[in-house]
Amino acid sequence: MRPHRPSNLLRVMPAKGATAVDVVVIGAGVIGLSCAWRLAQQGAEVTVVDDGGPAASDVAAGMLAPVTEAAFGEEPLLRLACHAVATYPSYVDELGGSEVVPVRHEGTLSVGLTADDRAELARLTTYRDGLGLRTEQLTRRDTREREPFLAASVGGALLAADDLSVDNRAVRAALRAQARAAGAEMLTGGPARLQVDAGRAVGVAVGVDEVRADVVVLAAGARSSVVDGVPEHALPPVVPVKGHVLRLRPQPGRHGPPALTHTVRALVHGREVYLVPRADGELVVGATVEHQGLDDTVVVAAVRGLLRDAHEVLPIVDELALAEVSTGLRPGTPDNAPVVGWSAVPGLFVATGHYRNGILLSGVTGEEVARQVAGHPPSALWQQLGPRRFTLQEAHA
Amino acid sequence: MRPHRPSNLLRVMPAKGATAVDVVVIGAGVIGLSCAWRLAQQGAEVTVVDDGGPAASDVAAGMLAPVTEAAFGEEPLLRLACHAVATYPSYVDELGGSEVVPVRHEGTLSVGLTADDRAELARLTTYRDGLGLRTEQLTRRDTREREPFLAASVGGALLAADDLSVDNRAVRAALRAQARAAGAEMLTGGPARLQVDAGRAVGVAVGVDEVRADVVVLAAGARSSVVDGVPEHALPPVVPVKGHVLRLRPQPGRHGPPALTHTVRALVHGREVYLVPRADGELVVGATVEHQGLDDTVVVAAVRGLLRDAHEVLPIVDELALAEVSTGLRPGTPDNAPVVGWSAVPGLFVATGHYRNGILLSGVTGEEVARQVAGHPPSALWQQLGPRRFTLQEAHA
Repeated sequence: MRPHRPSNLLRVMPAKGATAVDVVVIGAGVIGLSCAWRLAQQGAEVTVVDDGGPAASDVAAGMLAPVTEAAFGEEPLLRLACHAVATYPSYVDELGGSEVVPVRHEGTLSVGLTADDRAELARLTTYRDGLGLRTEQLTRRDTREREPFLAASVGGALLAADDLSVDNRAVRAALRAQARAAGAEMLTGGPARLQVDAGRAVGVAVGVDEVRADVVVLAAGARSSVVDGVPEHALPPVVPVKGHVLRLRPQPGRHGPPALTHTVRALVHGREVYLVPRADGELVVGATVEHQGLDDTVVVAAVRGLLRDAHEVLPIVDELALAEVSTGLRPGTPDNAPVVGWSAVPGLFVATGHYRNGILLSGVTGEEVARQVAGHPPSALWQQLGPRRFTLQEAHA
Repeated sequence: MRPHRPSNLLRVMPAKGATAVDVVVIGAGVIGLSCAWRLAQQGAEVTVVDDGGPAASDVAAGMLAPVTEAAFGEEPLLRLACHAVATYPSYVDELGGSEVVPVRHEGTLSVGLTADDRAELARLTTYRDGLGLRTEQLTRRDTREREPFLAASVGGALLAADDLSVDNRAVRAALRAQARAAGAEMLTGGPARLQVDAGRAVGVAVGVDEVRADVVVLAAGARSSVVDGVPEHALPPVVPVKGHVLRLRPQPGRHGPPALTHTVRALVHGREVYLVPRADGELVVGATVEHQGLDDTVVVAAVRGLLRDAHEVLPIVDELALAEVSTGLRPGTPDNAPVVGWSAVPGLFVATGHYRNGILLSGVTGEEVARQVAGHPPSALWQQLGPRRFTLQEAHA
């Protein structure tokens, strides 16, 4: 099946020397790949272009945590996130099952180190309870039984049993494989430049290559607002939000029980730190939240702080190998929700701004993008998440 | 000039398919390369074999610090180290000058964070004064003037003006270039195996390659005691002493005064940490001292501790990029002094065990090895540093 083309889209003839496809996707992170996969599945000829640089998708920790991520005033995002968690198992099945994409179901423990930290957690819990999110207060003893290596200063914990976690690198690798299997082409080169002709998007240039397309999907994550050639009024209001993440692993030759089995989110003297365990013993520790532009330098203060705080919560981290120190740039938006929909430039579709929820929302985003690109109106959960919402709000102000 | 061959060495004919040289050196760290360079300079045909793995030479910080390294009961080592520092400028000249091998002359500041730390420093100072080493007590104000970014809790400092520091990676690179220029061949492959025939060393095998030689110089650093084929009674008593080292650098695009200009050695709640500045703004922070065998895993506790202690001494490290985290294996010996001399196996010369002083002693070691291999007896400074000293001590016990 070829995708239905909205009647306002004309087939653009390829320029001399350029290839032509139905859709070109800018960005090979989990969002771009998921879009490419679903578009290719419904019959579109798809090319994904990418600069080959590091992707936030690979730095992420893979928490699928609508409950413990729920912050004040983010209800549209929360509804979408709950839907994404509920449908994650079938998404993983389509990606090849849990052999290919390991998912953990132990849930998340939220803990506080000091009395102040625990008071802040209680405040958030009251809010989340009000939203109908399921959490359970565990006693100190129950907590210790579940996670014997937590620091003595950690008392009880709040269990969010519905939170999942996933190996985010496996998600990205599986998406790439599925997109390829569905027929999508991958083109890795320099930065992409949008080609605009007579006011509409007609393709993408990467180095000397040019790919003409009816539709361009802008899924460049934190770099979405600096893609060359995109008219200013169509740029999504995405800002890079830098996060430092550590990957700890058991030392070679040392065996023992895993340091953690649940995801642990801790408040440590008011600072947030999370620790996400993998089946192979890896522990992902994150993450800072920094507004530093597109800078991705690993900085002492951040690494020092993460190691210090992780150690306060789980002293046994000291015995693990420090396997990786990395930074990723989350695509932040003014309301922390993604930006998915047709832009002000005909032919240019935007799918970015997933901030801390890219891994969680990758599946539902790909499906929604494929729907809308095929000519359907936004589905209910996405109606408030289009790129025009920021311009409209400004007009009202 | 061909090297003089001691009369007890017979020229060994090469086996079929093997190349033959005068000397094969096992190990391409600064010690092996310095030996190869000096041997080649005096006319020997030299091949250096190396497994291509990481070298402690590249992890080191490059402190040339006989004064602040002087510990109780290590006088033979101290005399050698003082000689090495005194001759370092001419060594650097031969390596291409300070353009090629940057040396810093600001000296070392020893500081203590707590009253206990300062008391311990005072105790060491008394000892070093007794040895005639030149140090100068700086007031808090003088210290602050020299290093304005030191933590407020650091009071005065002890200046060792004669201590130098050098870019150790530049030393290794220059030694490699000089050794090559003098005619030495480099052979990088798997681990080396000593070839012994009728009780004497006759060459080295690396993978399928075999290099026959009159003399084999064992300069494999921390791996010197596990080189295949070396008869047990000839193995130097070297144990690997693991050290974690960090390399911090200014963040891209950020300019300002350097974080430090002197090398700073600090006692922080009884723990030692050093910070060695480079001209390009890099700051080398080290080092742990761990007996973990040949394991070179980067471990959380060590990195956490170095970052914490460096930050206590110099809070501004927080603003630097964490450019590298590495571990090196120092070749430790029972008396912390190097092991340089003919082994119990004819044809096998040992040059290893330089522990924390490999960069400092590389020049004088190369010269001494070339002398002894050419048939000369050990020179005065080296008479107590041969490999037989451990067996003799045991015999006396």
